[in-house]
Amino acid sequence: MSRRTGLHALTRSMHEKRVLTALRTGGAMSRAALAERVGLSRTTVSEITGDLLARGAIIVAETDAAVRVGSGRPAERLCLDPSSGQFLGVDFGHRRVQVAVADAAHEIIAGGVSRYADGTPWDERLEIAFALTERLARETGTHLGALQAVGIGVPGPYIGNQPGVPEISWNRRLAPKGIDTAFAERFGAAVIVDNNTRFAALAEAISHETAVSDLVYVRLSDGVGGGLVVAGRLVTGGRGFAGELGHVTADPNGTNCRCGKRGCLETVASTPAILRACRERGAAVGSLDDLAERVAGRDPAVEAVLRDVGATLGRVLGATAMVLNPDEVVIGGEIVHVAPVIVEQAAATLRFELFSIPASEPVVVRAGQLRDSDGAVGAIAALFHQSPLLAGYAEATTPAGSGPSHRRSTS
Amino acid sequence: MSRRTGLHALTRSMHEKRVLTALRTGGAMSRAALAERVGLSRTTVSEITGDLLARGAIIVAETDAAVRVGSGRPAERLCLDPSSGQFLGVDFGHRRVQVAVADAAHEIIAGGVSRYADGTPWDERLEIAFALTERLARETGTHLGALQAVGIGVPGPYIGNQPGVPEISWNRRLAPKGIDTAFAERFGAAVIVDNNTRFAALAEAISHETAVSDLVYVRLSDGVGGGLVVAGRLVTGGRGFAGELGHVTADPNGTNCRCGKRGCLETVASTPAILRACRERGAAVGSLDDLAERVAGRDPAVEAVLRDVGATLGRVLGATAMVLNPDEVVIGGEIVHVAPVIVEQAAATLRFELFSIPASEPVVVRAGQLRDSDGAVGAIAALFHQSPLLAGYAEATTPAGSGPSHRRSTS
Repeated sequence: MSRRTGLHALTRSMHEKRVLTALRTGGAMSRAALAERVGLSRTTVSEITGDLLARGAIIVAETDAAVRVGSGRPAERLCLDPSSGQFLGVDFGHRRVQVAVADAAHEIIAGGVSRYADGTPWDERLEIAFALTERLARETGTHLGALQAVGIGVPGPYIGNQPGVPEISWNRRLAPKGIDTAFAERFGAAVIVDNNTRFAALAEAISHETAVSDLVYVRLSDGVGGGLVVAGRLVTGGRGFAGELGHVTADPNGTNCRCGKRGCLETVASTPAILRACRERGAAVGSLDDLAERVAGRDPAVEAVLRDVGATLGRVLGATAMVLNPDEVVIGGEIVHVAPVIVEQAAATLRFELFSIPASEPVVVRAGQLRDSDGAVGAIAALFHQSPLLAGYAEATTPAGSGPSHRRSTS
Repeated sequence: MSRRTGLHALTRSMHEKRVLTALRTGGAMSRAALAERVGLSRTTVSEITGDLLARGAIIVAETDAAVRVGSGRPAERLCLDPSSGQFLGVDFGHRRVQVAVADAAHEIIAGGVSRYADGTPWDERLEIAFALTERLARETGTHLGALQAVGIGVPGPYIGNQPGVPEISWNRRLAPKGIDTAFAERFGAAVIVDNNTRFAALAEAISHETAVSDLVYVRLSDGVGGGLVVAGRLVTGGRGFAGELGHVTADPNGTNCRCGKRGCLETVASTPAILRACRERGAAVGSLDDLAERVAGRDPAVEAVLRDVGATLGRVLGATAMVLNPDEVVIGGEIVHVAPVIVEQAAATLRFELFSIPASEPVVVRAGQLRDSDGAVGAIAALFHQSPLLAGYAEATTPAGSGPSHRRSTS
């Protein structure tokens, strides 16, 4: 496929989209039927479908010989490759990248993880993510040629391609600008990049049958992050930094935080901080597995630490809930599944903080449903629900200038 | 004017609106020109304009005798009464109601205040507001017949006409349900009712040439209230209680709050609390005027109290700003004009709380531009900016079932 530029590429990309949409909604059909349905000439449709066939996005389903009455060469009927990967979700952590692929029916059809050392440069992380994506495609027979969109979660605020927005000096591990463009060019699809905790907030909001329109989400992990859904929309804030619950001061006299302040929520409620507090209370807890054992054994020192963490968390979440009046407050992260008492205590403290709100209007406080291993799913959820939950959200980055430079999967 | 029901009333009301809009945008014109412009029959237009003339919404500007070439009776040219009150803003406080009237050009053309005893029942307050409105109309020659909309600010959360939402037991002075209907029926206009602090937040957000899309507003008054604008919209929260900054716990070991908790921001930063703290430090301060004197005289005890208040306020606002990442934080209430050091100290503390946000992205912290006496203006601002700032906001209550039962102003 030749590279095209400017308007031609845009037009072609729109035509492709129409053809793919027609096949997704209308099922298998001949090129003639397709041309009629999308309102393009047969020549244009043949050109487009030829390209899509070559890229593995669509396949020849059958010929119409069986149902054909007249004479002449039987017409081929085209359809989407049922194994076509339509949506890609990518979740970058500090030490691993997860990838999930969802099909046109929004089912997750493939997923995997690749690990890397903490501090691995971002260009290497991208290559690792590309390789993982292509390996998954190979193993599952998924064709990446028909990707509609890529959602990418990154740790920390993502400053995207906004001009003039500086890096954050104390957080050197932040994703750099340009990740969106790199993916858009690699896979020829629209890309949305945002903080992975924000995507998780959205995924939690839509995890019910009816989406929750006002939700506060906090995730306890290596750090503490958060995300807000207000009136059915993800909140970015004036400059894109909304949701930074981890750096709300929980105790002005607390321990030093990597951000420069003291006693931020992160210094109390991150997984490492909780494990450290357990050790300071004499419990030899080095990992979440150790913690799980102590919780099962009802270690009183560990229980006290976890209740303190829950109470501190409940106060910070309570102040946030007092201001935002959410329907739900969701506490995510692996540790809340290991130590559910954190959520129980946070809920109790938070309910007292909301004392002035009528008791008949209780906020739901619950553990997150998504596990840490579901990060890529959260990114895909953001794609599925781009409308209306992402209405007004930053525009997705689409492949730049030249036409999509598709990499053929090697299957 | 006879009372009409159902569809007929609705149709009539829509026709009226079209006629008024045509006159507002097109200036004076004859009934024939009007009929052509709004696409209604001359008979219908004559009926509608007859009604509007009787109600004082429109007037006869002139006849076209001067410009007329042919023969016959000169046609009357109609126009909006230039003194017509088009928008009504009402702000109920605990001890007074303010009313402001804005004309079609959004200029405030009349305003006034009536006082009542604290604890005055709401039905009496409504009658006082109606009487004030009609007196203002009389004094200024304003006709209330062409009111387009009424914005009403009330203290505390307004639970409106949502079924099943309970009263808040600790706050007996809350506005009861049905205020919207009462005004809609009295003036035959659409009505929006909400917490007056929320309206003030909106008014502050649009007080610049370019509206601020993310703003946190707190008002220090008899109590402490707040309002949020997120992504250009007023935030109501899941159940309508968003913005309750006054009952965020500022000091868990603080003094008792009327809500049942201890150390809510209101117990520290409300005007009575601040005056009380000054007295506890030996400064005989009984009123804002006394406070102004002490501030002018640089009383060190008073300065210390005000700085403590500012620091506490800054911590609470800092936590909120960390989560919401607003462009502006606005501190309103008469006291911040008397004691600007509160804002100065709050800004300093808040900036430290936001330490982890890049310093190149500073949030603006400022005193509110609207004075307490501008409450009704805030309610009107909400009407003017119903779109897009109120997009998705609760629907305005329109006059019920029967057609508008207009009260003629007695001018």
